Amino acid sequence: MKSPPQEFDAIVEASTLKDAIDSVGVLVDECKIRTSPEGLQIRAVDPANVGMVDLTLSAPAFESLNTDVGILGISWDRFEKVIGLANNGDLVHLDYDHETRKLNVEINGLSYTLALIDPDSIRQEPEIPDLNLPADVTVEGSQIARGVKAADMVSDHIRLSVDDVEQSFSFSAEGDTDDVDLKLETDDLVALSSAAPADSLFSLDYLKDMNKAIPKDAEVTMELGEEFPIKLHFGFAEGHGQTTYMLAPRIQSD
Amino acid sequence: MKSPPQEFDAIVEASTLKDAIDSVGVLVDECKIRTSPEGLQIRAVDPANVGMVDLTLSAPAFESLNTDVGILGISWDRFEKVIGLANNGDLVHLDYDHETRKLNVEINGLSYTLALIDPDSIRQEPEIPDLNLPADVTVEGSQIARGVKAADMVSDHIRLSVDDVEQSFSFSAEGDTDDVDLKLETDDLVALSSAAPADSLFSLDYLKDMNKAIPKDAEVTMELGEEFPIKLHFGFAEGHGQTTYMLAPRIQSD
Amino acid sequence: MKSPPQEFDAIVEASTLKDAIDSVGVLVDECKIRTSPEGLQIRAVDPANVGMVDLTLSAPAFESLNTDVGILGISWDRFEKVIGLANNGDLVHLDYDHETRKLNVEINGLSYTLALIDPDSIRQEPEIPDLNLPADVTVEGSQIARGVKAADMVSDHIRLSVDDVEQSFSFSAEGDTDDVDLKLETDDLVALSSAAPADSLFSLDYLKDMNKAIPKDAEVTMELGEEFPIKLHFGFAEGHGQTTYMLAPRIQSD
Repeated sequence: MKSPPQEFDAIVEASTLKDAIDSVGVLVDECKIRTSPEGLQIRAVDPANVGMVDLTLSAPAFESLNTDVGILGISWDRFEKVIGLANNGDLVHLDYDHETRKLNVEINGLSYTLALIDPDSIRQEPEIPDLNLPADVTVEGSQIARGVKAADMVSDHIRLSVDDVEQSFSFSAEGDTDDVDLKLETDDLVALSSAAPADSLFSLDYLKDMNKAIPKDAEVTMELGEEFPIKLHFGFAEGHGQTTYMLAPRIQSD
Repeated sequence: MKSPPQEFDAIVEASTLKDAIDSVGVLVDECKIRTSPEGLQIRAVDPANVGMVDLTLSAPAFESLNTDVGILGISWDRFEKVIGLANNGDLVHLDYDHETRKLNVEINGLSYTLALIDPDSIRQEPEIPDLNLPADVTVEGSQIARGVKAADMVSDHIRLSVDDVEQSFSFSAEGDTDDVDLKLETDDLVALSSAAPADSLFSLDYLKDMNKAIPKDAEVTMELGEEFPIKLHFGFAEGHGQTTYMLAPRIQSD
Repeated sequence: MKSPPQEFDAIVEASTLKDAIDSVGVLVDECKIRTSPEGLQIRAVDPANVGMVDLTLSAPAFESLNTDVGILGISWDRFEKVIGLANNGDLVHLDYDHETRKLNVEINGLSYTLALIDPDSIRQEPEIPDLNLPADVTVEGSQIARGVKAADMVSDHIRLSVDDVEQSFSFSAEGDTDDVDLKLETDDLVALSSAAPADSLFSLDYLKDMNKAIPKDAEVTMELGEEFPIKLHFGFAEGHGQTTYMLAPRIQSD
């Protein structure tokens, strides 16, 4: 079903909403929010079909949430700007007006009426495939930031790999003249739950964008394989929010 | 009379001078400073005749002020840069040299010789009309900043209005798809001295510029009417400085 | 001799390396590092032959230094970016690989392989002439910053002069309409070791670049003459590093 909810009335802390908006906004400009009494879900894929996001924000993340099942089509860019008017501790009141088909956003006496988009005009939501990836490693968000920044100095690709013998995880990149390698050993990792061999190359631009939305202090769990997509999972809003990114690999040339 | 003063020798804190310069600099590039033993006065109107400023800085705002009645023609842009070399707590020594017709600016051992402009080449000072505006409301500078920022997301115009029944003051803006409204009720206002109905539309660019010069913690008194100009008053330099802006309304189209 | 060292293995604090890199990087894009057990030396001149730098970083500045006499050709821009990945307190491990002719840079588990440049392709190192300049004055780096910033408002040249009668040192600049003068008297100077008359004009762009590399709290000793080059000396790395700049004068037109 593609109709908007009969009712959507939610109060949520601005910081929670900002984290959710950032996670999706690095990939797409507009998307569908699926509403239900259990919370919100957003699934989106970038125009080139390379990066996907699956985000859930469950009911306990809200101060209050009154809604039924439905879909809201949101222009992400304008939504991001409005929420940017709030300070992190502010409460944001979202209220869908079924008559005008607009979303009222209220922040400390400021009312913003956001025109919604017809969900049919928004790119179809992707199915995030179940891939059964063999390696499973958890790192701090700040380590991803380091790896991405270093790789960016030499290349527009980045290799992520797990060495099951060394029990290590590496970011690496090869440039025309210079190479870079950030190897995280057991002590540098939050966890190495499954140390199968893994080695895949990715477009750095996508990982840079995803990195922007990953909190530096988040624990990010990565599932990897040999020339396979990567999945990154991290929580926000004290665990009531969950983001999964999936990124397709680049073919490795020799 | 359009002649420079025989003497102009003043010592003033840099922060006071910066506040005064900001207030005028957002509207004009050059202006006349009228000197007298009572203090300084600046009146200026922007090239499009839409925004006016009337600023006074009275003698007690100065560490010392020795001057007679006269006019100094100042290039605001260069004056602003020089004073920008001072830290807020620094004392600035201004000394007009009648021989060279230049203004010596001294800041902690640094001497800057500022060439003045012939006052006759500067746009005539405006008469700020006495308008007898019916509504009178006082808000914090930070609320103006919020209203202007929100309006800027949807339009290049902003409506300011007083609802005498609700005893409220509003900033609002209508965009092609989205609207925004910041309503301040009695508790959000510093004062609502005269709650007559008022409603006027203004060019947002001008109010954005004026907002830059309004300290966030200043109490700003606004006089308004129905499709009439607005006057904004605020003090600086511990009350020894006073700025009045007047902004002409835009015709409201329907 | 132009060959690389047989061995070059050094550990040094990132902040020390950053200070050294900044000093040279404001003048040239690539340069030769001369290695020896006593430390490193870099001499370079900018492409227009106007500004020179002579930098030494002696062995006690390093946590460890194992090297023989040799030359490493470095692309300064890439070296600067890599070291920029380190936090100031981090230790940087530099290790020259004689096989691959590359420099391995290691920072907290991050390995960067920096391709070196053939020293023969790098501009010849200048001889810094012994000039026997008559005046000798020491100021704080922050005063140079003030003088340069003020001069930049009116001109693209700056005059540095010593008045031996007044026992003062001045930065000054003359613009088309405005002039600026920062006079430092005995109390404002760290030292005036030799108060001979001196007066020379310099290109402001070069002094602005050098100023970027001079720590604000450094004591900078300047040697000057009448229409002669200026030499600026300052230390870093707790005195184990020493930078000398020499800047050629501009002909003074009248």
